[in-house]
Amino acid sequence: MLRSLSPDALAPATLPLRAFRQRGLVEVLDQTRLPRDEVAVNLTSAADAARAIATMQVRGAPLIGVTAAYGLALSLGTDPSDAGMHDAYTMLLASRPTAVNLRWALERVRATVAPLAPFARAEAAWDEADAIAAEDVATNRAIGEHGLTIIEELAARRSPVHVLTHCNAGALATLGWGTATAPIYLAQLAGIPVHVWVSETRPRLQGAKLTAWEMRANGVPHTLIVDAAGAALMRQHRVDLVLVGADRVAANGDVCNKIGTYEKALAANDNRIPMYAAVPSSTIDWTLADGDAIPIEERGSDEVIGLEDDAIAPAGTRVLNPAFDVTPGRLLTGIVTERGICSATAGGLATLFAPGTRR
Amino acid sequence: MLRSLSPDALAPATLPLRAFRQRGLVEVLDQTRLPRDEVAVNLTSAADAARAIATMQVRGAPLIGVTAAYGLALSLGTDPSDAGMHDAYTMLLASRPTAVNLRWALERVRATVAPLAPFARAEAAWDEADAIAAEDVATNRAIGEHGLTIIEELAARRSPVHVLTHCNAGALATLGWGTATAPIYLAQLAGIPVHVWVSETRPRLQGAKLTAWEMRANGVPHTLIVDAAGAALMRQHRVDLVLVGADRVAANGDVCNKIGTYEKALAANDNRIPMYAAVPSSTIDWTLADGDAIPIEERGSDEVIGLEDDAIAPAGTRVLNPAFDVTPGRLLTGIVTERGICSATAGGLATLFAPGTRR
Repeated sequence: MLRSLSPDALAPATLPLRAFRQRGLVEVLDQTRLPRDEVAVNLTSAADAARAIATMQVRGAPLIGVTAAYGLALSLGTDPSDAGMHDAYTMLLASRPTAVNLRWALERVRATVAPLAPFARAEAAWDEADAIAAEDVATNRAIGEHGLTIIEELAARRSPVHVLTHCNAGALATLGWGTATAPIYLAQLAGIPVHVWVSETRPRLQGAKLTAWEMRANGVPHTLIVDAAGAALMRQHRVDLVLVGADRVAANGDVCNKIGTYEKALAANDNRIPMYAAVPSSTIDWTLADGDAIPIEERGSDEVIGLEDDAIAPAGTRVLNPAFDVTPGRLLTGIVTERGICSATAGGLATLFAPGTRR
Repeated sequence: MLRSLSPDALAPATLPLRAFRQRGLVEVLDQTRLPRDEVAVNLTSAADAARAIATMQVRGAPLIGVTAAYGLALSLGTDPSDAGMHDAYTMLLASRPTAVNLRWALERVRATVAPLAPFARAEAAWDEADAIAAEDVATNRAIGEHGLTIIEELAARRSPVHVLTHCNAGALATLGWGTATAPIYLAQLAGIPVHVWVSETRPRLQGAKLTAWEMRANGVPHTLIVDAAGAALMRQHRVDLVLVGADRVAANGDVCNKIGTYEKALAANDNRIPMYAAVPSSTIDWTLADGDAIPIEERGSDEVIGLEDDAIAPAGTRVLNPAFDVTPGRLLTGIVTERGICSATAGGLATLFAPGTRR
């Protein structure tokens, strides 16, 4: 069933997290069961939140950060001691290694509540997690408005504007609008015809399972392709713009995102197609000089090989399964943030984020 | 069960076609059922051969050509008339659109038997199909020997030599040795340590299902990756050489091969890693000025979406499924043929194939 965008909101079904403070409960949409089943999972502890992140029931850098913040709030409700907070913080931080928002959100909650007496910590943590969630929506809306200017410019020459995206940096990865998808949704609301090439994103198929589902729920025309087809479509000039999210951006503009982003950037560059990473500023890791220092999570072989009930390769086949890659900033047209658009360089980032204004 | 290479042959299980002239029968390995089941299918008519090609029970440009040649021989055994030959030729030619070897092999059989009286055509067609099959083995062995020099040079600096391949241009795609795999097998026989990165090759997973199986059957160390990981591994300098096959090479050196080859070439080029297409000269289409004129087969959406028993995307999702892409010759280090190695340019090809020596 297709649902259309309302003027100021996405389809309610695409909201991946709801927090219920009075009940000490956070409800998340189990994204591992999409697109077939829309099932909610209840989190009542930091361990629940860490498990939901590690098993990818919740995923996407901004949503991971928010979920971890609520996980810390849940934990402080039962054990607000320094030791309890330390344990919960450590467990949540270890749930996924690559997304810097996770550390950023946890650090923000901890810094807020650590000076408080234990009895006051849980309420303050809920307040802070709610604030992070609300800011995420506003941040993504701002990313969308800046990114919309890119689509508007392309729409003067092409209709529909063909946008290629990889993985899911969508509403499902955030508390609203998504990052890479925010400009697409705002273009749709502005009446600009847009068509989205959805790259399926092996091995976990977040493009096919999540982005296609989300585009459908919000009535955005889209076509699914295998990952390897993206470059070929660019060579055929059937792509006008590439928009992706990121899990971490280094201080020099190198972008760490889902495995396959680097080759999309090579193809965009070879065919002079603009490509941007759309990120909240919490994704920028100012401590990293370049992308090569970003830790790349290697996940299990069953994600690759256990695609069907029947294994797709001979039993015992060795598998390497890196979840992310690093795209050198030189291959990107720019980075879209809530503060505006800049080149993917240290100098470009400094125009938007002068020291002292970085968060 | 691991089987090792014997000094002059691959594991017998990896022979994908056996012809039995006395029984009017061609037996092919049903490659759609690998890696789980090793099942033979009997072909007794041109329609059987065309169906085996169209459904990809046999696949790979050289094997498609040989299968079509035997298909024509089978047909001439029951109807050697001009009209019967025309119908069988037309049906077989239509079974797959991209591989030029198909047309080349059919044309070769037809040219041989057309001048003969009908009663003599079937025997002559079997002779010609047998000759094409035998030449394929010799051609691939020669490709392997030329390609081996590339691996030997790399082995002076790196051990093992890490070779990345995409799809299956292996023994299963030919009558023996494969094209892209021939240098790998000969290196293995020469005692040079080789490790193969096997790109899984969505949507049909020929890398995971066929190349991994074939490497295992022949005792070659290998690791399976998703397609999108190839570029990232190149950026990490974990690949020393990229070797692929091709379905058609244009006169200017542009290479049409499995979707995803183009992006591998972009990554190899960006990281100064040598990349070659290994092809028999029958793959070169001298009538095509460049790769953009090559017809690209678009296959059904179920190959992409019907990955599991459960669909991987919402029902009704639109899919585009191009089976091949074109890699500009400028991105390749060269082309390995049975006559030697040349640059992927018109001038390079002319050094090996002077007009009048082209087949």
